[in-house]
Amino acid sequence: MNTPANKPKTAVTPTRDENYAEWYQQVIRVADLAETSAVRGCMVIKPWGYALWENMQRVLDDMFKATGHQNAYFPLFIPLSFLQKEAAHVEGFAKECAVVTHHRLELNADGKLVPTGELEEPLIVRPTSETIIGDAFSRWVQSYRDLPLLINQWANVVRWEMRTRMFLRTAEFLWQEGHTAHATRAEAEEETLKMLDVYADFAENWMAMPVIKGEKTAGERFPGAVQTYCIEAMMQDRKALQAGTSHFLGQNFAKASGIEFLDHTGQREHAWTTSWGVSTRLIGGMLMTHSDDDGLVLPPKLAPVQVVILPIYRNDEERAKVLDYCESVAAELRGQHYAGRPVSVTVDRRDERGGEKVWSWIKKGVPLRVEVGPRDMEKDALFVGRRDRTPKDKTSIARSEFVATIGQLLQSIQDTLFQRALEFRAAHTRQIDSRDEFYAYFTAERSDPNLPPPIHGGFAMTHFGGSVELEEQIKNDLSVTIRCIPQQATESGTCPFTGNPSPTRVVWAKAY
Amino acid sequence: MNTPANKPKTAVTPTRDENYAEWYQQVIRVADLAETSAVRGCMVIKPWGYALWENMQRVLDDMFKATGHQNAYFPLFIPLSFLQKEAAHVEGFAKECAVVTHHRLELNADGKLVPTGELEEPLIVRPTSETIIGDAFSRWVQSYRDLPLLINQWANVVRWEMRTRMFLRTAEFLWQEGHTAHATRAEAEEETLKMLDVYADFAENWMAMPVIKGEKTAGERFPGAVQTYCIEAMMQDRKALQAGTSHFLGQNFAKASGIEFLDHTGQREHAWTTSWGVSTRLIGGMLMTHSDDDGLVLPPKLAPVQVVILPIYRNDEERAKVLDYCESVAAELRGQHYAGRPVSVTVDRRDERGGEKVWSWIKKGVPLRVEVGPRDMEKDALFVGRRDRTPKDKTSIARSEFVATIGQLLQSIQDTLFQRALEFRAAHTRQIDSRDEFYAYFTAERSDPNLPPPIHGGFAMTHFGGSVELEEQIKNDLSVTIRCIPQQATESGTCPFTGNPSPTRVVWAKAY
Repeated sequence: MNTPANKPKTAVTPTRDENYAEWYQQVIRVADLAETSAVRGCMVIKPWGYALWENMQRVLDDMFKATGHQNAYFPLFIPLSFLQKEAAHVEGFAKECAVVTHHRLELNADGKLVPTGELEEPLIVRPTSETIIGDAFSRWVQSYRDLPLLINQWANVVRWEMRTRMFLRTAEFLWQEGHTAHATRAEAEEETLKMLDVYADFAENWMAMPVIKGEKTAGERFPGAVQTYCIEAMMQDRKALQAGTSHFLGQNFAKASGIEFLDHTGQREHAWTTSWGVSTRLIGGMLMTHSDDDGLVLPPKLAPVQVVILPIYRNDEERAKVLDYCESVAAELRGQHYAGRPVSVTVDRRDERGGEKVWSWIKKGVPLRVEVGPRDMEKDALFVGRRDRTPKDKTSIARSEFVATIGQLLQSIQDTLFQRALEFRAAHTRQIDSRDEFYAYFTAERSDPNLPPPIHGGFAMTHFGGSVELEEQIKNDLSVTIRCIPQQATESGTCPFTGNPSPTRVVWAKAY
Repeated sequence: MNTPANKPKTAVTPTRDENYAEWYQQVIRVADLAETSAVRGCMVIKPWGYALWENMQRVLDDMFKATGHQNAYFPLFIPLSFLQKEAAHVEGFAKECAVVTHHRLELNADGKLVPTGELEEPLIVRPTSETIIGDAFSRWVQSYRDLPLLINQWANVVRWEMRTRMFLRTAEFLWQEGHTAHATRAEAEEETLKMLDVYADFAENWMAMPVIKGEKTAGERFPGAVQTYCIEAMMQDRKALQAGTSHFLGQNFAKASGIEFLDHTGQREHAWTTSWGVSTRLIGGMLMTHSDDDGLVLPPKLAPVQVVILPIYRNDEERAKVLDYCESVAAELRGQHYAGRPVSVTVDRRDERGGEKVWSWIKKGVPLRVEVGPRDMEKDALFVGRRDRTPKDKTSIARSEFVATIGQLLQSIQDTLFQRALEFRAAHTRQIDSRDEFYAYFTAERSDPNLPPPIHGGFAMTHFGGSVELEEQIKNDLSVTIRCIPQQATESGTCPFTGNPSPTRVVWAKAY
């Protein structure tokens, strides 16, 4: 397919190298994933973006159910007094919240709507549901026989963020929050780590996004948690994205909410609880892991459309024949399964210029494009392009072979994306043993003060034996934080900042 | 199975006849569907209730997609000014709303959290999304090529109801809202009726709940709609439940939100829009259609568990053998499909008294109970109870026969429930041609002023040629309203209230 000479080299402007932050917004735009709304910090998730979320939900929900969890639904609103029950939680969450203070509107003398009916106690739109779910758990849990209690909720939550970015940080976002209660500390800790593994499995095997599993340092813990675990991924600007968290809450929330049970011996005890969540932020992470300067690149397992078939014709007679042929190929493909569902195929029947149609699907990240013209039909062959290769790299494949191997083809793209991301992360992860090298690694040399700083740095693996205050100072100096203490321990060593001994290396990075 | 002599005759107290409203609450409680929360008018949907909603969602979502709709997600909050765009809409919805006025909380000198950070423009928690979705559509629709635009949203909405009842009327509820835009009036009208048909299909063929499809009178229209269609079902107290609505909005919202497009001739026109929705209210409707004095009765197609297997044993040795046998029956059943999914089977392994276990599943409404003891095992037979029959009515069925016919058995229960509801409705629907008979039909004779009024009346089919004011007066006199003008027309006649001619009968009833 020829493109006009004046066509820019890439479908997205600016490119990742030119301006990564703006490239991100432009990929969302050209792939038609989402848009900003009239409400500050709230986005509209458009059908292509929502279809990604639906696919993520389906897979995660199956994983949660396979590990014994049940879904339930709790109120959107949290009474102000509930937030105050857990001291650390207040500090962390009772800051930037949407507060409902009135329950009625009336037209005033000027014909303007004004709030009336002031509530006795203001209500918070949930930023997270530990306190309101804890209240329910305190009724549901009476005896050890009621435990473990394994609940998940799919919901919207609101955090009044000052600086928002679509999918990554929005005032309202969609997520799931797991909340569980257990009879023993050991069981709750096991649950916390089990769900961390579920998240890592989903990130790596479905999103094709490599992650490091680890524990947060004290300064980065969820407010009210005893331990916070996370999965951290590297984006293409080498920044880290916290993609999911799993919290061991000890007995803190059980004490705050009164979740008590009679154990086997008739003793009254507080339960041990956990919570864990992932959100629509994953869509931003998936985008920044795989996409390129031509737009979105989707891992086949989560793509709403896995194969798009593009009929090529010059007149109405050809059109009818080619369309029939395309529909019969589509039907055959839909009879095949990949990753637990029938292969998802769309025939693009729009009467538009072929080049525009092809590029619209490239920008949307569809894994396989199949072009079919009269000559291909005659040979019973298909002209196939893979989204993990350049747009012009296309191959003719016999129809029967293509249908028979569709699962392998899709898996090959899935594997390529994962492998590429893994290599990218390896190439931009450095073991650092001196403070000077650390500071140099994270300091970009800016050639022109009017341009965004060049992409530089990445993950730094260092020993660390410092305090929360030292972490804070390094954050102030470099905007770099300890992303986690990886679960997979390294050799022990010496902290380059303090000279203290350190049992294992930690991961530092700039982060979203 | 013997029950102690002092056991009350029914599992639910009071019975439907004794106190219908309280019976409803008690069924929710014994079936563990939901509970009230600490937040006024908001309920907690417990796992058994939420599993019903998940099943409803899955089926409806498939139906929406099969009719060409795509899901998307729009902001929870609506700027106050948006509600004012459509005059009738303001009247209808800008009344009892949750209003967000602040975006921050601070601890005051007394250590109490107080709202700060007042918003310049208050935000409404969406009571419905016509205005915020209209705003998005005004950007998405530019040309006739962008139409039809067929969008659905699964979401929570909030209406600050004064008198709430679980599932039927709660401050927050879960629903889906379809919103579509079309190039012509005819297409939008067709869409409105198509979705009404989808709802009726779902109600009758999945919920086993017969419905009357019809149009609302002017007084009962959705605020801002040109025409509102609905499905109306009869509950066992003979009241009507509006179970779903589909609105033809004309160009009202398109004009309010500026949804304009260039037609084939290059003329700029306003689009024609529709909206349609069903909510968690359906769970209340399903409950009140089928349940009895022993608790919930679920239509098999939507039951979270379709078959429960109850092992009966006297000692550990028997226990192990019987459990193994039960699990192998369960595995065979799960290999069968019914209504598009594998048969859902639970083996109740709890170490509790057999009678309590059986009754817990009766109360939860599971369609088929299978009891297996050592003697049944020897005969390779199962002792089967159907939830549409009395608890003691149980039959021994050969295992192979039970497995082979499981789909037919479930369908037989589904059919029985629908047929029973249809007959109930027929028995309590009366054609009425005089005002006196109409007033007598809806006036209960109360034997004891301290007891709730007896269940009486039902659906009255009358001609009507009166005004909105007359409807209002009848509502004031009897708490009875025109539920709809049925789509399926009757003979023409004379209005018994005014003597005016009338083209078809309308349905009157008391309603939820």
